[in-house]
Order: sequence, then C-alpha cells, then structure tokens
Amino acid sequence: MKKIASGILPVIAVDRKSSKPLHQQIYDAYREAIASGTLRPGQRIPSTRLLAKELGVSRVPVLNAYAQLLAEGYLESVVGAGTIISRLLPEQFTSTAPARGKIASSHAGPRPVARQIASLPATQYRPWWNRFGAFGVGQVAFDQFPIQVWSRLVARHSRDMQRRSFHYGDPMGSPALRESVAGYLRTSRSVHCEPEQVMIVAGSQQALEISARVLFEPGSRVWTEEPGYRFGQGAFALAGCKLVPVPVDSEGLDVAAGIRKCRTARGAMVTPSHQFPLGMTMSASRRLQLLSWAHSNGAWILEDDYDSEYRYESPPIPSLQGMDVNARVLYIGTFSKVLFPALRLGYIVIPTDLVRHFVTARIAMDLGSPNLHQEVLADFMRSGDFERHIRRMRILYRERRSMLVDCIQKELAGQMEIVGAQAGMHLAVTFPAGISDVEIAQRAALQNLWIWPLSSTYQGAAPQPGLILGFGSTRTADIPRAVRKLRELVVHK
Amino acid sequence: MKKIASGILPVIAVDRKSSKPLHQQIYDAYREAIASGTLRPGQRIPSTRLLAKELGVSRVPVLNAYAQLLAEGYLESVVGAGTIISRLLPEQFTSTAPARGKIASSHAGPRPVARQIASLPATQYRPWWNRFGAFGVGQVAFDQFPIQVWSRLVARHSRDMQRRSFHYGDPMGSPALRESVAGYLRTSRSVHCEPEQVMIVAGSQQALEISARVLFEPGSRVWTEEPGYRFGQGAFALAGCKLVPVPVDSEGLDVAAGIRKCRTARGAMVTPSHQFPLGMTMSASRRLQLLSWAHSNGAWILEDDYDSEYRYESPPIPSLQGMDVNARVLYIGTFSKVLFPALRLGYIVIPTDLVRHFVTARIAMDLGSPNLHQEVLADFMRSGDFERHIRRMRILYRERRSMLVDCIQKELAGQMEIVGAQAGMHLAVTFPAGISDVEIAQRAALQNLWIWPLSSTYQGAAPQPGLILGFGSTRTADIPRAVRKLRELVVHK
Repeated sequence: MKKIASGILPVIAVDRKSSKPLHQQIYDAYREAIASGTLRPGQRIPSTRLLAKELGVSRVPVLNAYAQLLAEGYLESVVGAGTIISRLLPEQFTSTAPARGKIASSHAGPRPVARQIASLPATQYRPWWNRFGAFGVGQVAFDQFPIQVWSRLVARHSRDMQRRSFHYGDPMGSPALRESVAGYLRTSRSVHCEPEQVMIVAGSQQALEISARVLFEPGSRVWTEEPGYRFGQGAFALAGCKLVPVPVDSEGLDVAAGIRKCRTARGAMVTPSHQFPLGMTMSASRRLQLLSWAHSNGAWILEDDYDSEYRYESPPIPSLQGMDVNARVLYIGTFSKVLFPALRLGYIVIPTDLVRHFVTARIAMDLGSPNLHQEVLADFMRSGDFERHIRRMRILYRERRSMLVDCIQKELAGQMEIVGAQAGMHLAVTFPAGISDVEIAQRAALQNLWIWPLSSTYQGAAPQPGLILGFGSTRTADIPRAVRKLRELVVHK
Repeated sequence: MKKIASGILPVIAVDRKSSKPLHQQIYDAYREAIASGTLRPGQRIPSTRLLAKELGVSRVPVLNAYAQLLAEGYLESVVGAGTIISRLLPEQFTSTAPARGKIASSHAGPRPVARQIASLPATQYRPWWNRFGAFGVGQVAFDQFPIQVWSRLVARHSRDMQRRSFHYGDPMGSPALRESVAGYLRTSRSVHCEPEQVMIVAGSQQALEISARVLFEPGSRVWTEEPGYRFGQGAFALAGCKLVPVPVDSEGLDVAAGIRKCRTARGAMVTPSHQFPLGMTMSASRRLQLLSWAHSNGAWILEDDYDSEYRYESPPIPSLQGMDVNARVLYIGTFSKVLFPALRLGYIVIPTDLVRHFVTARIAMDLGSPNLHQEVLADFMRSGDFERHIRRMRILYRERRSMLVDCIQKELAGQMEIVGAQAGMHLAVTFPAGISDVEIAQRAALQNLWIWPLSSTYQGAAPQPGLILGFGSTRTADIPRAVRKLRELVVHK
C-alpha cells in the first residue's frame, strides 16, 4: 500500500448543517471507508492540515477525528510516513476479501457478451510464452540494443517536448516518422509508397486488426497460411471473419489449393518474405498467382513482412506489394523485431483510396499512437543508427543461427530436420509423427527452454510434429548447452 | 530526402553467372530504381565500400557503375554527404508523380470495404479541432506540466530498461501502474476495484472501443447521451452498434426517456460526474434508476469519468461504479486530462467475470500498451507528484474558469447563458435559436479561437445553439481579450 501517495484525498463529504458534529462526520467517513475496503491497511492518508484545507474546515475537527481513530486502532502513526491505516486491523474487519468477492460472476441476471468474443477460444496461458531463456520466439538480443543512443534521444525529446507534442497527434502518425518509414521501405523493400499512405500502428497486431475491421464484414472468408501466425489470425477472428486455412509448401502459400477451397474469399494474409513459422520464401510464380487471384476476385492481400530485415543466405527479396500494379496489397511491418516489442510500433502501407477509411477507423479505435517514441524513432532512422543496428544484429543473429544449426546437426542428427533457417530470428525443426511436440514444449519450459510446439501454429491437425526455436535472445555461447538439454528431452521422451 | 540514411541498402541483386558484367548489373539496377521512383532525387546512397561488402563483390565494379552514373548525371557527389541521387533529374524521368498515381482508386475491379466502415460518416476535418489558441476543448495547461520531474523519470526508465521491459508485457498493463490506479480510484473515486480488474488502455477512446467489442453484437442498441461525446459514440458505431440518443436534463441522463425509447438496449454510455458537454452531475435518484434498469435488463453501463478530478464548487462525487452492487458498471478514466493527451494512457475497471474476455480481445487488438510511460506513470503516482500536479491544476483551472465566467457575464450579458461550469476544463454557453453555432465556430477559427459548436455534439437536432469553450490551455490573462473577440463574432453575426 506504499504505492498510494498520502496526497490522494479520500471521498469525505462534510455537511455543516448536519446536527452531527464535524469531527464525528470525519470519523464515520474514515471508519466506513476502512470497513468497505476503500482504504486499505498500510495505506497513507492525508495530513490533518491538508484534509482540513481541502474540506474547507478548521483543523480542530480533523485533529479530533484522527485522535479518536488512532486511539481506537484504526490508524497508526509511522515515523517518516505520517499517518497510515493500521496494519493490525483484523482481516474480518477490513473487507478486502469480500470486496473481491463482490464483483463476482454469481450475480443474478444475464451477463451477456458479444458472440464474436464468446466464440473465440479463451486465451489460455501457455507455458512457453513470454519467458526468458533459450529459444524464446520473437525475442531480440536485448543486451545488444544501443540503449545509450536510444535513451539519450528519449530523454531529449521528453525534456524538450513542445506544445504540439503534448496534444493529440495525427491519427496516421508523426509526419517525420512516416517520411522515414516510406523512404526506408521504398529503398530497402521496393515498396511503392508515399508518406501519406503510411499509418503508424501499435505493432503488426494492430495493423492486422485495423485492416480486418476496415476491409472485411463479419462472416467474410479470409485465407490464412496453414501453419501460420495464430496471434495474427486472432485479429481476423475477433472481427468475425471465417478463417480458411490454406496449406503452404516449399514455395509458400499454395494459391491453387486456396482457390479450390474458397475462390471467393475476401482476403488473404500472407508472410511471403519469410513464412511464419516454416521460413520459406514465396516463389515468384506463386506471388503472381496470388496477385492475379486477388485482382480478379476483388480480394485484399495483407503482406506481413515481420522480419525480412534479417536474411543470411541471399539478398533481401523485394516485397509482394512492390510487384502489385493494382493496389491490392496492404504492406505491414513492425519495429518489434528490429528494435524491441515493448515499443509497440509498426506500420501499414495503405492503398491511397483506402486511407480515409483507415483514418475513420483509427479515430474510433484509439485516436492514434503515442507521440514520444515516434519522434525518437524518426531521429533514430534519420541519423543512420537504425541501419547500423540492423546491420550489427544481422551479423549477430547469423552467428547464433549458424551455431544453432551446427548444434542441432551434431546432437540431433537423424532425429530432426531443420526448416527455414535462411532468415529471421527463429527456425523450425520437424520430427516423425508419434512424438507430442506440446509435451516436449511443456517439459522444456520446466528446464527454462521456451519453445513453441509447431502443432500450435496449425488450425487443423499438423502433418508432422515439430518445434519452433528462437535464437534472437540466446547467446551464441549458451546455444550448445541448450541444444543438449533439448536432446535429453527428445531422446528420453 | 535527407531523412533517408545512406546506410539503407537499395534492393540490388547481382548474378555472378550472368553474361552481363557486374558493373552493368549495378548500373542497370540503380537506373531502374531511379526511374521507378524507388530512389528519389536528393536521397543519399551507400558508399561503394559498403555496397560492395553487402553484395559480396569487389569494389571495382561498384566504382565503375557509380562513375558511369555520375558521368551521366543520375548521381551527384555532395561534400560531406557522400553520393546522392541527382537533384537535377528532369521530373518526367523520376516517376514520383506517376508512382503516386499508381496507387489510385481508378483501378478496375471491385474495391470493397466493410459495411460498418462504409456506413460511418467519413471523418471530416473540422476547423475547430486540434489547433492551439483560446478555448481549445480537451487541451491542458501544457506550460504548467512538471516536465522536469516527468522527463527525469522518463530518462531514468529508458536508460535502465531491463530485459523484461523490452519484451511484450501483460496485456492488462504494468502491474505497478495497475496497483497505483486501483488505490487511487478506491480512495479518491470510491470505485470498488482490485488491480486484477484494471486494464491500462490507450486513453478512454480505446476503453470504449474494447468495451463495445466485448459487450455488444453488431446491431445491439446502446443508449448514448444527447448531447454527448461524438468520438466516444464513434467506437460504438464502428462496432456496429445502433446508437439510441437519450436526452439529458438538469439531473443528467433521463432514464425514463431511455426506457420509453428502448427498454431492451444492451448498454448505456454515460458521463455521470460531469456530463459532456453540458456539465451537470447525474442526481442520486437517476443513478439508482439507471443501475436498476441495467440490472433488470442485463444491460451494461459504461461510466466515462473523463475529468472528475477537477471540481470547483463541491467535494468530488463518488463514482457510479461505487454505488453498484451488481457489477454492471465498467468504469473508464483517462490520463489525457490530468496529464496530457499524447501519452495515450487511460484505464478501465472491469467486472471480475469479464476480465478474461477483455484479455482475449486486447491480445487480438494490439497485445497491450507500450511499457515505458506506464512505468514512469506508476512512479509519478507513487511519489505523490501526480496528486500535487492535480492539486496545482485544480487551482489554476478554477482561476481560469472564474475569469471566463466573469468575462462572459460582463461582455455577453443577456446574450448567452452559461451551463456546466462547476467542474472540468470546459463550460458551455447557449444562446437563442436562430444563430448558427457552426458558423460562429468557423469564423472563430479564423480568429484563432478554437470553439466547438454545441450542435455538433447532438446526433439529432439541437434544441438550442451554443458553444463549448475550453479553458484548460487558455492563460487567465488572455481570456478577457479572447472573450471580446468572441463577442465581436456573436454581435456582428
């Protein structure tokens, strides 16, 4: 309860015209607030001087009330902390527990929620999420981030904040950042874009979410890659879309299979540069098939280019958006992989004729992204620090990837096949049917290895079990031991 | 084009097996990238050394290609900036303009968007939005913000960022901030809550948006205040809800009128502490009527308590949520008014049984709020700086409000009636029918007065024209002149 500053005034109303004396009114208000759990044991309360001033009464009744509350043990005085609610009050008196119970699901009356939310699988905690240890997926080399350069920019922008930076910003995002992003994408990803088409969003998740809402009705069918990115699919499911899983093979999304399953789908979500999770690159002929299907069916393509900055074997591949002459592709990228996830910044390149709809939706959703880190990031890109960081990380991740590949080949030869190690911050391994990848991932988590089971990325049954191994945050020197631990889990399954 | 760092590598693929010499391949790639608008006049390009390294070729072909491009005028050398795309290229050669045109709405084929977005009125620019001058609504006293204390915290948290702070956080928000918010709301607003019920969101806009999606189907009817907060209503409209405007009178929302219009509505959005825009407080009997209606109809109440921190005439009024024993109220607050809007932080207190649905929705929407400012804000609240700031601002805004009220009474006596000046950062004035408030607001904007017309807050016809005058960002000394300017506009209408 130290977290509650003493200057926060409890809601105490005094009525001068009441026959009840002021000190009694204050005493009663405190006693009730304590009994109801509004004020909690250990919480600091305002000084008598401050409370008297705020209530507009003399200090005498406040002093009297506090004296009585202290004498009866409701309050205690703590040297250096002023007056606090007594920490010795019996639990049955302070109603923390009942208060928790109060807001319960057992209330009479219907408590309806929207069908689209009730029909989503509840988000269950997965043991392999969001923990720190070898193989965490989507984790970057935090200790290699140029925190000094970055936080100097953060400090400067926060200190020198101008009036404009305090207020609501452009729902499309900061103009400076949008210009930097457009230049970067044109140059390094061959994306066709002007700053007016770039919307800054809260990571690729919000990019997919806003696209789903603007482009698709509830009930619309949308192709998704099978296997694919489940969090991304969640954005479409929340919008009420029906997902049509379309298999991927060595050339990426099997467009012909998609057409057979559902030619009239309204959209497709794809990861052409580096398929998640299997890592292949979509071939040129598949790209052309996909664009042609979209054009002739009036469908939209969402290109999620989440980690194309890191390619190890070949030069970067131009974006699908850059090949499209019909403005059917919405290009999505994120700073979660090249900078860090907690930044919650990404972008979407929107066909010009759709921009106004995205603005309308964004205003209704959250009015736009917070300003400070957008300004910091624009500077970071302009100065060349962004590119330098990517180049350093590419070298680092290549080294980690090579070590991981070598160790797997040495320790798990013949037991696992590596797929998709040409790019990004993760690779996948597959192994023969009959082994439960979920069970391995669960046991791995007990060993501080945070592995995603490949089957968890399938909407249907996985043809083959496997594991997704992140190497972004695993130090090169720690990889051999982690792979040996993994081997133990697989061999002694 | 200075915004594009020279380290960003254009997509250039070289093929050693090709019969075309390497220098010719590089030359062709540049020429095409310039012609297609991928590289723009004035943009810096990588040094020959860096490009050779990245392409894995010797420096000689790169030097040859650059020499030829320089000789032909595609590139130019600039002292101190290295090599750039020539700024003298004829416009008809560089295709910036055609590239813009490319992504146009004139393409063949249907370009469908979701009905719910197509049916929303397009967000039109309003001359009175987002500008700086007297009477701006929703603008705080930016120059009084304790920027030194705040930016010291920002700098410290950014510099000392730990691994945990880099990664995705809890979709509910930072535990420290949620604990501070829960303690603050219990104490100062009599809200019944535990940190487990508090979700940190991107301002009250996102709170309304996520509530709309979790609680209501497309097609659900929801009561909204008439007049009311149009941005908030936008969140419901985007979710496909049908808005049922319910009039407010001197006691706030007219619950009986709401029941007459649509007893079976699924929810109600209200501002009981300080109605937006008319400023009245919802009476106790109306509060009980509203809670009783909600309980017996299985409806949800969204209590938007956007600026209750600032009350000038009476002690703060406990929240509606605190009166509710059936967990029918979702309590929403924002830091946009007590700190600043660009922060994009607010909170929602969720009935315990609904928390899991909100988490599922939030993960699909954006995975949660960015971390840094949450940590900063938790510290700012814990240290007492938050309360001190509110107390200082309350004194300042009271002074500004009094000056504004005095000036209106002096300059516009008999022409305008003031309503809702007891709290918050704005008041409203009404005047006789026959005067167009929109026209006044438009003409005021030309005079650097940023006033919202009252009629713009009605879904139907406004019974009376009027103006909403913010006083948060208008210096006390500037108010008399601003009111005289306003008088000119009204008198010489």
